[in-house]
Amino acid sequence: MNTLPIITLDEIQTCLSEDDILSAVKAALISHGRGDVNSPPPGILQLNNPTVGECHIKYGHQKGADTFVVKIASGFRDNGKLGLSPNSGMMLVLSAQTGAPVCVLDDKGWLTDVRTAAAGALAAQAGAPDKVKVLGVIGTGEQARLQAHWTCRLLGVKSIVVYGRNPEQVAKYVNDMTAQGYEVSIAPEVKDLLKQCNLIITTTPSPKALVLKDEVQPGTHIVAMGTDNPGKQELDAALFEQAAVIMVDDLAQCVHHGDLGHAVRSGLISQDRAVSLGQVLAGEQKGRLSPNDITIADLTGIAAEDIAVASLVWERKKGR
Amino acid sequence: MNTLPIITLDEIQTCLSEDDILSAVKAALISHGRGDVNSPPPGILQLNNPTVGECHIKYGHQKGADTFVVKIASGFRDNGKLGLSPNSGMMLVLSAQTGAPVCVLDDKGWLTDVRTAAAGALAAQAGAPDKVKVLGVIGTGEQARLQAHWTCRLLGVKSIVVYGRNPEQVAKYVNDMTAQGYEVSIAPEVKDLLKQCNLIITTTPSPKALVLKDEVQPGTHIVAMGTDNPGKQELDAALFEQAAVIMVDDLAQCVHHGDLGHAVRSGLISQDRAVSLGQVLAGEQKGRLSPNDITIADLTGIAAEDIAVASLVWERKKGR
Repeated sequence: MNTLPIITLDEIQTCLSEDDILSAVKAALISHGRGDVNSPPPGILQLNNPTVGECHIKYGHQKGADTFVVKIASGFRDNGKLGLSPNSGMMLVLSAQTGAPVCVLDDKGWLTDVRTAAAGALAAQAGAPDKVKVLGVIGTGEQARLQAHWTCRLLGVKSIVVYGRNPEQVAKYVNDMTAQGYEVSIAPEVKDLLKQCNLIITTTPSPKALVLKDEVQPGTHIVAMGTDNPGKQELDAALFEQAAVIMVDDLAQCVHHGDLGHAVRSGLISQDRAVSLGQVLAGEQKGRLSPNDITIADLTGIAAEDIAVASLVWERKKGR
Repeated sequence: MNTLPIITLDEIQTCLSEDDILSAVKAALISHGRGDVNSPPPGILQLNNPTVGECHIKYGHQKGADTFVVKIASGFRDNGKLGLSPNSGMMLVLSAQTGAPVCVLDDKGWLTDVRTAAAGALAAQAGAPDKVKVLGVIGTGEQARLQAHWTCRLLGVKSIVVYGRNPEQVAKYVNDMTAQGYEVSIAPEVKDLLKQCNLIITTTPSPKALVLKDEVQPGTHIVAMGTDNPGKQELDAALFEQAAVIMVDDLAQCVHHGDLGHAVRSGLISQDRAVSLGQVLAGEQKGRLSPNDITIADLTGIAAEDIAVASLVWERKKGR
């Protein structure tokens, strides 16, 4: 009986380029928007004994594919104290013919990190105004780095303005992103960042709105990445009322635990206002109607993205 | 960066005895009954393109344990045509301190098979009448073999009466179990089996009741293992009304997709009638009140069992 192949992080990183990941995630968002991915609601395990953390399980099958995927992603916020990343995980590829596991991707959570960043960059592109000179980044964690890199790369932007609560983390962020070749400045308050930027990415675990309606300039596109449970919020619910276009990776998830949920639950807007990011990426819906629109993309992360990147790794490794 | 350890089926089978598994599953059922296991509802992925199958994901954390477990179990009924078992899968052990994966159990679904059989044997013991001479088995699949072996072993029974719809499968079952040292006879109909047996295990994918109320003798204990979705049914719903004791591995699961669900949904009984199998095994509830009682144990399989066996394997392998 054969032992299950295990594909290491090194092998995974070697076999995928950033363009491969962008293409795979774009196709996944479009496919999900068309209803071609069978992905039940994610499983969530909350742990608080001995340590506080969460494990999210996303899984599904792209219709007609010969494999399906189960993705495990942990987030343990106190890992920093141990010198570890808060995020870890793995992906499993299984046969859609027999149900048997075909390989384990021991990616240490890396595929989740990059597919999230790729989705953010695509969501930024989908609603971005014509001219973006500087990207506004709210947050200073791992995704604040990855989102900035992937979005700047996709849109040809060289400058970043960052806001973070913790000055030490902000300084570290500036150092790291400067080392990557970006021109980085610091906004002392969110409102200062909003004055300078017409493209904003939020990637914090904030429990209350940071981006307030009256501080956002006309013509701004906001990509909200951080909110992944009903107790978190990055955007003023009133911003959704004002937005000309609201894009979501998955409507049910965004209403359940994304930023959109706050606006829907408070009765400010109907969930019908949201359009599928996948349909915008496919050119079937518009991500921006006019230059002065405020537009929002709310992302919660979908199994289709995990399926796409995991399947691509397996496709490339299986023959070798 | 270390590669994730992978523990093979061979290594798993070598490090666990049947008694180890029985003890672990018994402790798991008791612990689950006390509310000491944090296990959200299982995830289920139905596949039907290209092949019809199901993948069940069970996961959770035993309070205070330093690991948590995610179990993947596939069932693809047409695998027989390819000469494969319908069941396969794997288990993952992760750190409850950091969320990071600690090992993969490449058990090919074996741990799920044996933990299910162990739970069935314990459920049989929990309600069995004083004297059991012959075990009645309805079904001829893998679990019909394992359940019979584990139950006969636990209760010191040597004889089996089997009923199955397919004569070829029945003949194969008789051969296999005879080769294992049991005395096996065939019941032409379910009612013939019910006349001869006061301990019955049902383990079929039947869509409608096979065990009818008026054919069950007083003093019979029935362990219902097969029903794992609302479209399956092995026991007459009226049997639950008549039963003196109804035991469940998990009340919510049994109401949702076990045999008990049919009796509750049809309004024949209230779900309060059911007691926890774990509490019976702990001696806190009775599994049988008098010799003439009809008693039922309805099992759907719980994450606590997976956590227990996977953790035990990891405990034994990690030091080596």
